[in-house]
Amino acid sequence: MYRTHHCGELRLSDIGKLSTLSGWVQRTRQLGGMTFVDIRDRYGITQAVFNMNTDAALCEQANKLGREFVIQITGTVQERSSKNTKIATGDIELISTQLVVLNASKVPPFTIEEDTDGGDDIRMRYRYLDLRRPPVQRNIIMRHQMAQEARHYLCQQQFLEIETPFLIKSTPEGARDFVVPSRMNVGQFYALPQSPQTFKQLLMVSGYDRYFQIVRCFRDEDLRADRQPEFTQIDCEMAFVEREDVLQTFEGLLKHIFQYVKHYDLGDVTRMSYNDAMRLYGNDKPDIRFAMTFVELNDHAKGNGFKVFDEAELIVGICAKGCADYTRKQIDELTLWMQRPQIGAKGLVYVRYNTDGTLKSSVDKFYNSDDLAAWAKAMNAEPGDLLLVVSGDAAKARKQLSELRLEMGSRLGLRRSDEFRALWVLDFPLLEWDDDDQRWNACHHPFTRPKATAEGWEKTPPSDLKAEAYDLVLNGSEIAGGSIRIHERPLQEKMFDLLGLTKEEAEHKFGFLLGAFEYGAPPHGGIAFGFDRLCSILGGADSIRDFIAFPKNNSGRDTMIDAPAPIEEKQYKELGIKAN
Amino acid sequence: MYRTHHCGELRLSDIGKLSTLSGWVQRTRQLGGMTFVDIRDRYGITQAVFNMNTDAALCEQANKLGREFVIQITGTVQERSSKNTKIATGDIELISTQLVVLNASKVPPFTIEEDTDGGDDIRMRYRYLDLRRPPVQRNIIMRHQMAQEARHYLCQQQFLEIETPFLIKSTPEGARDFVVPSRMNVGQFYALPQSPQTFKQLLMVSGYDRYFQIVRCFRDEDLRADRQPEFTQIDCEMAFVEREDVLQTFEGLLKHIFQYVKHYDLGDVTRMSYNDAMRLYGNDKPDIRFAMTFVELNDHAKGNGFKVFDEAELIVGICAKGCADYTRKQIDELTLWMQRPQIGAKGLVYVRYNTDGTLKSSVDKFYNSDDLAAWAKAMNAEPGDLLLVVSGDAAKARKQLSELRLEMGSRLGLRRSDEFRALWVLDFPLLEWDDDDQRWNACHHPFTRPKATAEGWEKTPPSDLKAEAYDLVLNGSEIAGGSIRIHERPLQEKMFDLLGLTKEEAEHKFGFLLGAFEYGAPPHGGIAFGFDRLCSILGGADSIRDFIAFPKNNSGRDTMIDAPAPIEEKQYKELGIKAN
Repeated sequence: MYRTHHCGELRLSDIGKLSTLSGWVQRTRQLGGMTFVDIRDRYGITQAVFNMNTDAALCEQANKLGREFVIQITGTVQERSSKNTKIATGDIELISTQLVVLNASKVPPFTIEEDTDGGDDIRMRYRYLDLRRPPVQRNIIMRHQMAQEARHYLCQQQFLEIETPFLIKSTPEGARDFVVPSRMNVGQFYALPQSPQTFKQLLMVSGYDRYFQIVRCFRDEDLRADRQPEFTQIDCEMAFVEREDVLQTFEGLLKHIFQYVKHYDLGDVTRMSYNDAMRLYGNDKPDIRFAMTFVELNDHAKGNGFKVFDEAELIVGICAKGCADYTRKQIDELTLWMQRPQIGAKGLVYVRYNTDGTLKSSVDKFYNSDDLAAWAKAMNAEPGDLLLVVSGDAAKARKQLSELRLEMGSRLGLRRSDEFRALWVLDFPLLEWDDDDQRWNACHHPFTRPKATAEGWEKTPPSDLKAEAYDLVLNGSEIAGGSIRIHERPLQEKMFDLLGLTKEEAEHKFGFLLGAFEYGAPPHGGIAFGFDRLCSILGGADSIRDFIAFPKNNSGRDTMIDAPAPIEEKQYKELGIKAN
Repeated sequence: MYRTHHCGELRLSDIGKLSTLSGWVQRTRQLGGMTFVDIRDRYGITQAVFNMNTDAALCEQANKLGREFVIQITGTVQERSSKNTKIATGDIELISTQLVVLNASKVPPFTIEEDTDGGDDIRMRYRYLDLRRPPVQRNIIMRHQMAQEARHYLCQQQFLEIETPFLIKSTPEGARDFVVPSRMNVGQFYALPQSPQTFKQLLMVSGYDRYFQIVRCFRDEDLRADRQPEFTQIDCEMAFVEREDVLQTFEGLLKHIFQYVKHYDLGDVTRMSYNDAMRLYGNDKPDIRFAMTFVELNDHAKGNGFKVFDEAELIVGICAKGCADYTRKQIDELTLWMQRPQIGAKGLVYVRYNTDGTLKSSVDKFYNSDDLAAWAKAMNAEPGDLLLVVSGDAAKARKQLSELRLEMGSRLGLRRSDEFRALWVLDFPLLEWDDDDQRWNACHHPFTRPKATAEGWEKTPPSDLKAEAYDLVLNGSEIAGGSIRIHERPLQEKMFDLLGLTKEEAEHKFGFLLGAFEYGAPPHGGIAFGFDRLCSILGGADSIRDFIAFPKNNSGRDTMIDAPAPIEEKQYKELGIKAN
């Protein structure tokens, strides 16, 4: 038996007990003939004491312990004279009578502390050591709790957890598939699922009614920062539902997770149409922890001879509360920030609404005080505020101003990582035009149901079609997306046709689904949560990487195990492939 | 809103309610101006009634419904005059006032009933219809419950569910890896995990203490019957444990699942050494639902001039209770059964212990009544029993007799699918000699700890070494296997050396693990349950296939989606591979 207690367990009520602990040496201190050893495990830290006067040999042994040695200490629990209120076991200490070194440790390449001196690369290479650090451990444990609570809620709602296959068929469109050469069927490949989409729809056809799965998905994309080639979804589908049923069910899921994991009352989830989100925030996943909504100024700002505005499709601004005291230098810096290639604004117009009621802008040449006062009024500005205005092509101007809004929100401390606001974005467009391929793409995916239109969706111009799709946005990040699906073969065929798939391609790729729709497919819809992202937001962090036990770097590599790696000639042969 | 109630929900207490159900047409009957429609969903079946006299148009509509149409029926709940005690809703029926066909259905290619007329191939091709059948649905729902209860138990025991990566590195030895070509690192491959073995050990090094995961694993093996290329494990690991801790924890898991899913008290789990299992059952996974243990007869049967026995390494028999009345024909048939190539016995010796106390054998030429009585005594036989004896090479004879024992157990009804007996098999050999490669292989895996020996394990001949390994056997199937692991770098290096890995190979394949062992690796051990098999045994079925929603066939194909399949030329190019 390696231990009688965990390192976070002993209390005043255990005084006098003979106890054995096993764990890691957090630190040792020598002080006037005494040696103090902090022993650590997942559950906490306990102080063990060795006394040179009582047992010199044992104390010498303790003096030789290094950081991260794995040890077993037996001793008697005693009340501490000077208590440590920072740790749960701080009232007691262990008067050690026995010490066993279970395993030694080299000096770790970085410190195993709350904040470490290790850089990203070395921490990834020694991920097993980084995982010992308290912040990473808290993340991994929180992720565990979130998964259990998600399951708990969904099971209560009569969802069934059903496993779908990982070795499926490649149906490349949109993101790239990872493929797996088949040895038993040489020349053929499996693909790893980008999501269990078609399988969960088949489960609805099979009558399982409510399905979920916390499941790994794969996408062979060029990795932008904070994307992983493998990621985890909470994947869900329901039969006999309308949009409202789905929204309420998964609003409930999110609230449950917040309540039981964060002890945080999320409150109601706001709803907003895609159009409003774009108009008011320039973004289909607005951060609504703060307002600073867009105000369009075309009616106020055109026709004064300012060519930039006169030629602009859209003039749009935000009001930064209390920022009228921004210096010229600060505003210049903001302007340069907006002109960086990542954002690409041509410029930034400002109006200072001074506390004395006067107005001062960068376009005073074209607009007098009354003009500017009208802007300020339109923007609900008060003395002390700063108006920031961009213009140009409508879509670009909105995107640029959205970035500025988020930046100003951050600078003003309006995006607190311990405050949470969730939002449903509804009524997305069904299709988006692909200029490169000269065809329509599905905004969500080809299985999404078009919203009914007055004249029938087939007579509506494709660009006007809306989707029965919804995104769940938390603090400005999309954490879930879903839709009501098509469940009729003819409609699904028309959709494939609209997306430019020939009948043969549709049959080859999705014939099984089209077939299933002919045998009694019920109306259905669902959603998938990006679990890694959800974890990082609840954890108050920007990066998902420290919420994944063994993540890959931005080149898709695991530097700890050194994967991917070459394979043996024999493997190539068996698979019937060779390097090109 | 598609429904107010499920199809298994309405009761006498709902009488008078206006209710809407959605589901599938199970069957329709017309009877004297009335049409009865059974509407089905996952929760049950409800009878809806249409009356030609009340609403002829509606009734006509109902008459046109076909099997598996998806419909929505609104009506008033009424007490039935003739109740159906076989279904939960059998006290009531729905007097229909509205009928909507949500989706039509072609006539299914096989009947959606408890027993179907569909063969294996067609059921696999239309898996989404087979999944509607009640027995398959029960299996899938039971699997869901088992997963939840397993998690529930393990969470109570403070295990953390931690996800490990699917895209890892190929370390071919033993089974073949599925590999995934990397596009971003051309010429390199990921491998899909055969199990998360090294990652869960790293988690112990990281201090997570108790880990579990219900996780998909992959093995590119030539598929024997009832093997799947992807399969699910309940994968677990614990730190600071000895064998006893692991056995008790997972005995607890199995009992918990039986109690909460099957409402079955499994009782204590028997323990047996590998040597005893082989000696008494000829099998390292004995079915202990019945005794019929092996008795060795070398001391009784040698030296009587029967050359077959005299030259045999082992003479070993079982006593089939109450089978003395087997006819000559029955015994001949058993003998032929034993002589089939799959079993390969040369012959089968029998002794009838007749109810009148006389003994009659197939070797009366060599053994008199006293000789045979001595056998009978050694085998604890009583009048009425039949002794069945094989001989030859010890390992082969045991294997053959094990098959016969299982067959006799089945014929005698001693292997009931609703009776469950679990067994730990302990003290496995550490190594087995590979005649082909002329080297030692690990019986369990290279990370398994050798049992301590009196003279130190390095001085013990490899063939005598035992492993700190254990298998959990349920009704004659191995449902879990695990071991206490090596946690010291020097010992792990010696083990790799013993297994014929060069230092370079060991470093290339497992350098990260050897490295981790230098930074404070705690003693640890674990286990993995084969979840598919566990489900099938609890479900009382022989095949795992109907406990997997979308299984593959024996050629590793999913005939429903038609995978694996060729990929596009563009994909080959991007991956830097070509067909050989």
